Amino acid sequence: MSAYRALFDAHVERWSAELPPGDLYAPMAYLLALPAKRVRPVLTLMACDLFGGDPRTALDQALAIELFHNFTLMHDDIMDAAVLRRGRPTVHAHWNVNTAILSGDAMLVMAYSVLGADPIVLEVFNKHALEVCAGQQLDMEFERRTDVSLGEYKEMIRLKTAVLLAAALRIGAIKAGAGRADQERIAAFGEGVGLAFQLRDDLLDAFGETAMTGKEQGGDLRNGKKTWLLIRGLEVERERGSTTLHDQLARDPSERDVAVMITALRDLGVEQEAQQEVQRLAGTALDELEHIDPIGERSAALRALAVSLVERTA
Amino acid sequence: MSAYRALFDAHVERWSAELPPGDLYAPMAYLLALPAKRVRPVLTLMACDLFGGDPRTALDQALAIELFHNFTLMHDDIMDAAVLRRGRPTVHAHWNVNTAILSGDAMLVMAYSVLGADPIVLEVFNKHALEVCAGQQLDMEFERRTDVSLGEYKEMIRLKTAVLLAAALRIGAIKAGAGRADQERIAAFGEGVGLAFQLRDDLLDAFGETAMTGKEQGGDLRNGKKTWLLIRGLEVERERGSTTLHDQLARDPSERDVAVMITALRDLGVEQEAQQEVQRLAGTALDELEHIDPIGERSAALRALAVSLVERTA
Repeated sequence: MSAYRALFDAHVERWSAELPPGDLYAPMAYLLALPAKRVRPVLTLMACDLFGGDPRTALDQALAIELFHNFTLMHDDIMDAAVLRRGRPTVHAHWNVNTAILSGDAMLVMAYSVLGADPIVLEVFNKHALEVCAGQQLDMEFERRTDVSLGEYKEMIRLKTAVLLAAALRIGAIKAGAGRADQERIAAFGEGVGLAFQLRDDLLDAFGETAMTGKEQGGDLRNGKKTWLLIRGLEVERERGSTTLHDQLARDPSERDVAVMITALRDLGVEQEAQQEVQRLAGTALDELEHIDPIGERSAALRALAVSLVERTA
Repeated sequence: MSAYRALFDAHVERWSAELPPGDLYAPMAYLLALPAKRVRPVLTLMACDLFGGDPRTALDQALAIELFHNFTLMHDDIMDAAVLRRGRPTVHAHWNVNTAILSGDAMLVMAYSVLGADPIVLEVFNKHALEVCAGQQLDMEFERRTDVSLGEYKEMIRLKTAVLLAAALRIGAIKAGAGRADQERIAAFGEGVGLAFQLRDDLLDAFGETAMTGKEQGGDLRNGKKTWLLIRGLEVERERGSTTLHDQLARDPSERDVAVMITALRDLGVEQEAQQEVQRLAGTALDELEHIDPIGERSAALRALAVSLVERTA
């Protein structure tokens, strides 16, 4: 992990340092300099390596994926009216909304500028970029709806989060010359890890400890955010005829008792069910990796990264 | 013009009709259905034809240019807080700001999706797309500055308006297999026409008749918008030691006497100077066209379109 990370960090720092001056580019460098795990570009380099390519040949494509991801962060933060990202002011809070819109637009163009002209890579990138937009659209629609099903939620996080991990891996595989079947497998691995990662995120919000996560425990529950846990919890309540979550959600957010909601989720068996779902998703994803690399030597780094993402406690 | 226009209209209507349902795509179809001259995509088809290509082979690239242009309109209207476009509600006014941000993002991705993977076309598109963003950035910065020079203003409209016309033509030329020298000439033609077009726009705001333009005469002057006319007018005033424009600008916009400002621009010789500049720019542009096509037969349509753009009265 750290070798790939160092390789990418040097590349992104070089790129940032060469940006022209001015408010069109400064927000890009600012956002890229915030602490980040660089999961997506590292996945691109790892996938390239896994299929026998030189990871350095995929650095620009890894950068394109990271620029795209940061463009979505810049615009999502406007749409979510978020003022902090990793403890620092978001771009629209630090500059203004117009600068964040325009700099984000330019960042998307720059992602394409470094991506290159390989028609297969472009097709994968375009398809998944559009899916990420569709995922964000669903996320915003779900905020206004009360009847979101578990299937709809999973499709939303698949589009919003998982497909970009799949694209990052697939593009690395394409750069290494991997065949179609291998591309499909590594993309399926990425999508499974992405779904498990997001579900783990939902679990940490409710059951993680503030000391570890740095966030208020149950923040999503207080805000009535329709995560896997809350949607499934309401489903089980309806089956059982209980109404604890339903009653809490009927209150004003400031009046909700988050501890009661967390206990209800536990009592309804939703915590355990979600944990099992994380394991199932991760297991299916790792099976794909095993098909690609039965001995498991070449894919050790990818496997370790996937496990760290779905078992994380912060 | 009308044959190219009909060819493109059918293409864009087909594309719009095939968009998936939902609020991510509906704003794209809405914006594309507003009345529009389709100057940019028609330029792409004309340039392809001029250099011996079949315009139908450039339809997707023409569409990419038009999608890009409409993406910039969708986001610029947010940044400018404009509620009307061609007499209809803008996307953010009709839906909301978040939908306009996200649908615009997706529209940019779709522009790339139809553009194709020709590395030369991609390079031209990326370069000019970034320049358009830089032009919008300058435009926003100029609103907060009082010391914008004529050179800075010309560079801003070159980036914001003229380069996309140049890109539209150049991409049509590339699709037809035109050589580098011809590409440069047709791009220079487009840039000159774009600059003349924008300067003509500034002139129409101040000296056009409301009955023709459908806009309040002198709206830019009332708002103190730093157009070619106002910047040059203030320069000439300083040289002559008069202060009419300066004094009007010191007032609150609602207190400005637009008729007095228009008369001042006329008396300072700025109207005439601007008209001469439009003619000079258009003449230089048309010279480029004559180099490409000395007889003038193949380029008759392009020449007529350019003349109509710089001589328009509405």
